[in-house]
Amino acid sequence: MFVTFLSDFGLQDDFVGTCHGVIKRIAPEVHVIDITHGIEPQAVLQGALVLANTIPYMPEGAHLAVVDPGVGGRRRGIVVRDVTGRLYVGPDNGLLMPAAEKLGGIAGAWELTNSAYMLEPVSHTFHGRDVFSPAAAHLACGLDPSELGPEIEATSLVRLQLPKPEIGEKLIRATVLYVDRFGNVQLNLSRADVESAGIVPGRKVELDLGVDRCYATAARTFADARAGDVILYEDAYENVAVAITDGSAAELLSAAAGDALAIHVLA
Amino acid sequence: MFVTFLSDFGLQDDFVGTCHGVIKRIAPEVHVIDITHGIEPQAVLQGALVLANTIPYMPEGAHLAVVDPGVGGRRRGIVVRDVTGRLYVGPDNGLLMPAAEKLGGIAGAWELTNSAYMLEPVSHTFHGRDVFSPAAAHLACGLDPSELGPEIEATSLVRLQLPKPEIGEKLIRATVLYVDRFGNVQLNLSRADVESAGIVPGRKVELDLGVDRCYATAARTFADARAGDVILYEDAYENVAVAITDGSAAELLSAAAGDALAIHVLA
Amino acid sequence: MFVTFLSDFGLQDDFVGTCHGVIKRIAPEVHVIDITHGIEPQAVLQGALVLANTIPYMPEGAHLAVVDPGVGGRRRGIVVRDVTGRLYVGPDNGLLMPAAEKLGGIAGAWELTNSAYMLEPVSHTFHGRDVFSPAAAHLACGLDPSELGPEIEATSLVRLQLPKPEIGEKLIRATVLYVDRFGNVQLNLSRADVESAGIVPGRKVELDLGVDRCYATAARTFADARAGDVILYEDAYENVAVAITDGSAAELLSAAAGDALAIHVLA
Repeated sequence: MFVTFLSDFGLQDDFVGTCHGVIKRIAPEVHVIDITHGIEPQAVLQGALVLANTIPYMPEGAHLAVVDPGVGGRRRGIVVRDVTGRLYVGPDNGLLMPAAEKLGGIAGAWELTNSAYMLEPVSHTFHGRDVFSPAAAHLACGLDPSELGPEIEATSLVRLQLPKPEIGEKLIRATVLYVDRFGNVQLNLSRADVESAGIVPGRKVELDLGVDRCYATAARTFADARAGDVILYEDAYENVAVAITDGSAAELLSAAAGDALAIHVLA
Repeated sequence: MFVTFLSDFGLQDDFVGTCHGVIKRIAPEVHVIDITHGIEPQAVLQGALVLANTIPYMPEGAHLAVVDPGVGGRRRGIVVRDVTGRLYVGPDNGLLMPAAEKLGGIAGAWELTNSAYMLEPVSHTFHGRDVFSPAAAHLACGLDPSELGPEIEATSLVRLQLPKPEIGEKLIRATVLYVDRFGNVQLNLSRADVESAGIVPGRKVELDLGVDRCYATAARTFADARAGDVILYEDAYENVAVAITDGSAAELLSAAAGDALAIHVLA
Repeated sequence: MFVTFLSDFGLQDDFVGTCHGVIKRIAPEVHVIDITHGIEPQAVLQGALVLANTIPYMPEGAHLAVVDPGVGGRRRGIVVRDVTGRLYVGPDNGLLMPAAEKLGGIAGAWELTNSAYMLEPVSHTFHGRDVFSPAAAHLACGLDPSELGPEIEATSLVRLQLPKPEIGEKLIRATVLYVDRFGNVQLNLSRADVESAGIVPGRKVELDLGVDRCYATAARTFADARAGDVILYEDAYENVAVAITDGSAAELLSAAAGDALAIHVLA
């Protein structure tokens, strides 16, 4: 009986702890796994990508995710079931969809409307506590999602526009998806994408972020490079990323999520 | 069997993890819920307010709280029972009192003196590990608090001075209690306070922090405002707070906990 | 059934949560205790010291630790058993050794080579997820470490060089091991070390970090000093440390891990 939990709440405040309390009051035996609460405030796309990256490593259960700039407005609260039976709970702003689709697609969706499974009175600003955590706790205990509200059309669910790369013969135009604690810069590219442009381990490229530029080498892992080398590699979630051994590539390149990055394949 | 845990320990060091270890060695089956460890170092008032805000959302159990600038000195270690039966463990510096009083008041208090329930030798600087965590673990296992030391008078317990607002006809003088990750600025005001000064949703006010000033609108929720609007709203813990949609009100106003803020009601 | 977990992963990204998921998929009933994930990126020595400091406070189990600058290269993955029966899992870079030796020394060691207990395909950059977490989960469930790979000689294991202090009659040359959230500066000195130089509570000394200098007083605890006093004291892990009451000694002295610090004993 698991609830996994991802949010942009951070750990400085009590938001995460309060949701844990709410879940445990409803479902004392449930185990809560915090995927991360370090999503940038209100960064729905980033949250969606991290949830999709990590969901295959999580035990099955109710998957609670809250990055919710529209809280208190008209956006719906939803529960989505994927074809494997996992249940996702959160706002209908696209956050849940890449994860559900990664595991084969959506088998059902319901709107959270039944106030019997909410903390009343529902606040205008903290549905994580009052709506989503109670729903996830009840689902982890075996409640059928149809008890939480009416079924809705999968086609009506909000979907995010994922940035698409342009793959040319000598040039790739990519977007920075994510920068991690180690300064690794994750791109919206797969290994197949870079290989189709002729970039294989050992190949030299130039990275261009508009202002900052540098040379890099395609590599299999950090250990294939010397200290200070910039490398282009396939990361542990099968995204292509930029790293610098013994340093922060994000700092070197002044790279942040959303930035455009061009990769020039050198002769 | 729950222990909730709030502190100013942060998560960079091992302090929180060490206390978890101590609790689990004594009580392997207990669940620990971390309310937050992001209280500003030694900010007793802030810790007390966050504990009081969140306690209604926590399952019953032993409620461990450690913000303890006086560790190693003469301040007592205590356990307090509220009228609902919840047990609070921590230093006698006022930290525990607003939570216990929020739930109806204090039904008993004991000083932690019985070294049989401490880790010996007790360090001079980390009673969270050596005194408070063991006490909370034993209480969660059902130990009667009277085993931990002598009963003490509730009137002898240290209480904090909470900042009181001044509510005038066209002017409120308030204090910033807390700033959260999203830059929302929590004030020592209830909805009733602001309504008694004529501030209802839609009303315009001027916020004055001495140096920084701005206009704001009273609103029900973020979704009632346009991007960039400053709003005055009732937050999820029933405090009045200042926020800016798509931004940080704390940054805009250079506001920090403890700052004075005047609200001028506009004609 | 416990897994303790220490790393330099931080909590901003999903690395820790992903490892929790991996552990729980293998061992749903195991309790995971996060010692800390705030070790500075790739600071193997710091991680080793924190693990050794905290291990006596942890319940017995599988002790997972990942600070792994050599991931994907030739360094081995290992499991080490100490003479008390605790099992340590992580990279063979010295990280695990001070903890195992603190508890009496090493009783056995094995290399992690059996891919039946790894997540396949093993990534080049995240052995925490693909190699170490699965091993720890299986060990916590009772797997014999010899199932994970061949036994290896304890003498073949990588060991760290710990900085050694120089203790003179009027002068100690020490090294900063660690700076915590409160700005306390931990040194590679025991109480016996400073006492052998004549430093007992009440004694005045001068601290010299090259650029920054200040006077300090040896004290038993924070409460023995006045606000603003710099004190030299034995911390809760039996290391000598520098603190300033109501402030950050690390900031005052611009001290960071690895810095040299001289202590002059005053007449």
